[in-house]
Amino acid sequence: MTSPSQTPTSVPPLAQALGEFDLIERYFKSRFALERKDLPLGIGDDCALMSLPADQDLAVSSDVLVEGTHFFADVDPYALGHKSLAVNLSDLAACGARPKAFTLALTLPTLEASWLEAFSSGLHALAQQHDCALIGGDTTRGPLSIGITVFGEVPKGQAIQRAGAQAGDDVYVSGTLGEARWVLMALQGKLKMSPAYLRALRHRLETPAPRVALGMALRGLASSAMDLSDGLLGDIRHLLKRSQRGARLDVQKMLQGELASPSLRTLGEKASLEMMLQGGDDYELLFTAPKNLRDDLKALSNELALPLTVIGEVTENEGLALLNTQAIWGEEALPALGSYEHFYDQKN
Amino acid sequence: MTSPSQTPTSVPPLAQALGEFDLIERYFKSRFALERKDLPLGIGDDCALMSLPADQDLAVSSDVLVEGTHFFADVDPYALGHKSLAVNLSDLAACGARPKAFTLALTLPTLEASWLEAFSSGLHALAQQHDCALIGGDTTRGPLSIGITVFGEVPKGQAIQRAGAQAGDDVYVSGTLGEARWVLMALQGKLKMSPAYLRALRHRLETPAPRVALGMALRGLASSAMDLSDGLLGDIRHLLKRSQRGARLDVQKMLQGELASPSLRTLGEKASLEMMLQGGDDYELLFTAPKNLRDDLKALSNELALPLTVIGEVTENEGLALLNTQAIWGEEALPALGSYEHFYDQKN
Repeated sequence: MTSPSQTPTSVPPLAQALGEFDLIERYFKSRFALERKDLPLGIGDDCALMSLPADQDLAVSSDVLVEGTHFFADVDPYALGHKSLAVNLSDLAACGARPKAFTLALTLPTLEASWLEAFSSGLHALAQQHDCALIGGDTTRGPLSIGITVFGEVPKGQAIQRAGAQAGDDVYVSGTLGEARWVLMALQGKLKMSPAYLRALRHRLETPAPRVALGMALRGLASSAMDLSDGLLGDIRHLLKRSQRGARLDVQKMLQGELASPSLRTLGEKASLEMMLQGGDDYELLFTAPKNLRDDLKALSNELALPLTVIGEVTENEGLALLNTQAIWGEEALPALGSYEHFYDQKN
Repeated sequence: MTSPSQTPTSVPPLAQALGEFDLIERYFKSRFALERKDLPLGIGDDCALMSLPADQDLAVSSDVLVEGTHFFADVDPYALGHKSLAVNLSDLAACGARPKAFTLALTLPTLEASWLEAFSSGLHALAQQHDCALIGGDTTRGPLSIGITVFGEVPKGQAIQRAGAQAGDDVYVSGTLGEARWVLMALQGKLKMSPAYLRALRHRLETPAPRVALGMALRGLASSAMDLSDGLLGDIRHLLKRSQRGARLDVQKMLQGELASPSLRTLGEKASLEMMLQGGDDYELLFTAPKNLRDDLKALSNELALPLTVIGEVTENEGLALLNTQAIWGEEALPALGSYEHFYDQKN
């Protein structure tokens, strides 16, 4: 191809321009590199490739965390790395899927090695714990946000969905509720919390543990499920709407069982219930199951060392009712029990 | 469960708090609803579900467009909806995958019905054209950005990768190069463009056509491929690095063939080449193929009515050389031919 009169001009390397690629190489590609037969092609091509056993479906969920909306500007980057993946794994848990892989879309105002080191460490630790491989993504300059799309495997026909609750089913919540909201309000200066409690409970807001093992174990037991991210009272409406059912929830059962942690109870009954009902960032599973499975669910709770509390029952009639509120609030008006929303309706 | 002394307290609907869900319902869920056997569960649950034929792998790519980095604040929202998906489909094209579905993570500073209507229309039109279903996502308040993860099917073992170029292979580029960069520079006031040309070429920057049909047709023909998003000279380095090969590119071939559009040529040879080599936002395919496939590729070009231009050849030795630059630039120094990067290296 070279014409005789021409000397080829060598193009020098783009010394300045390898920033994005160096960054991906150092903090993501090398650290997350792994050999897996079900992931024939990972980071570094235009696409990643996944294969799927013939008897499985792929469960997919996308969530974004945005500075100012989901976290404070001074958040610990290790915790942020953890939480970015945790909220997505929590969605897989809700449908009973086993984590497989994820992509990361990272938008950053600047490149700081110390921030990236901590962020990728937090992300990596949780990813490893769940054998969830980073297979691709995108790094962009802009206001800080972290978008993750997570993939899981679930046997065909066994994914737990929101639409499945039947009248008479028990309504369950895993673990404990309300602590993340308390921590958030304490950090915002809206509610008091001792330094000792803050140290002990901060992880509930910043590094939540997605209920992946529970979700997989609920296949064939739960009639419906979802994860609690925006608060119990707001979230359960979505499950009930998809199921075309209603529910009665008993606030005394919420206080009596293990759903209210001993720490939270120190706030008193009213404030404890407000934290539990309004919640937000709980990342527990809300699910329904037929009453005849109570023994199975008790056994599962013991096996996982995770409380599974019955807080009420599904009703044929749509609508959500709270029982035994007078025992707590007496003649007082119920507080406005909303849940967290990113947008408020702008109609009218 | 109701104790006799207690009247259940009915919880009123969260009238204010349905904004996000209304929005998703109106502009995304309803508009994009479709029945597909390979997508058993779509928008509205914690996860979506996809099934995959036993002989296919799933190709996955994530890309984010951020205001200020990838588009102007006053961008036409219809075009933005189109482009957000187009840049992702272009990644599927590069590996020869057939589009299947996508998730959308939309971060918005405010909810404006007119903006959402136009954005979702642009997105929907391109999605329909490629039978690519919206199966889930997330809507968040924050600085405007659009994150899409796209899924495609590709027969096992047939995905085209970057690592595959062999010494002696022809280097091809599809379509035409450089027009998107010219439009961008014109909109930025850095380069002149007549209103007639701007009207005629603006679509190259704002609503690029991903080369999906070409990508699928290149299975079994191309030895390697990638899509051109950051500019030819920058992008080809990544393909060559993965292939552990080099290349000689002939600038005269770039000018002589159909790769330089008649419109671009009006800039003159030097400026045309600068636009083509530095590029950015071209969304054409760069690929390599053995020389004995030239007739097949000519036939494919005719069939698709899409120019496929040989611009050089792959070399055993790594490094990138430009041929015949003296015929264009004479004794002048070559202009700095970088390519677009979101970050510049901060080492040193």
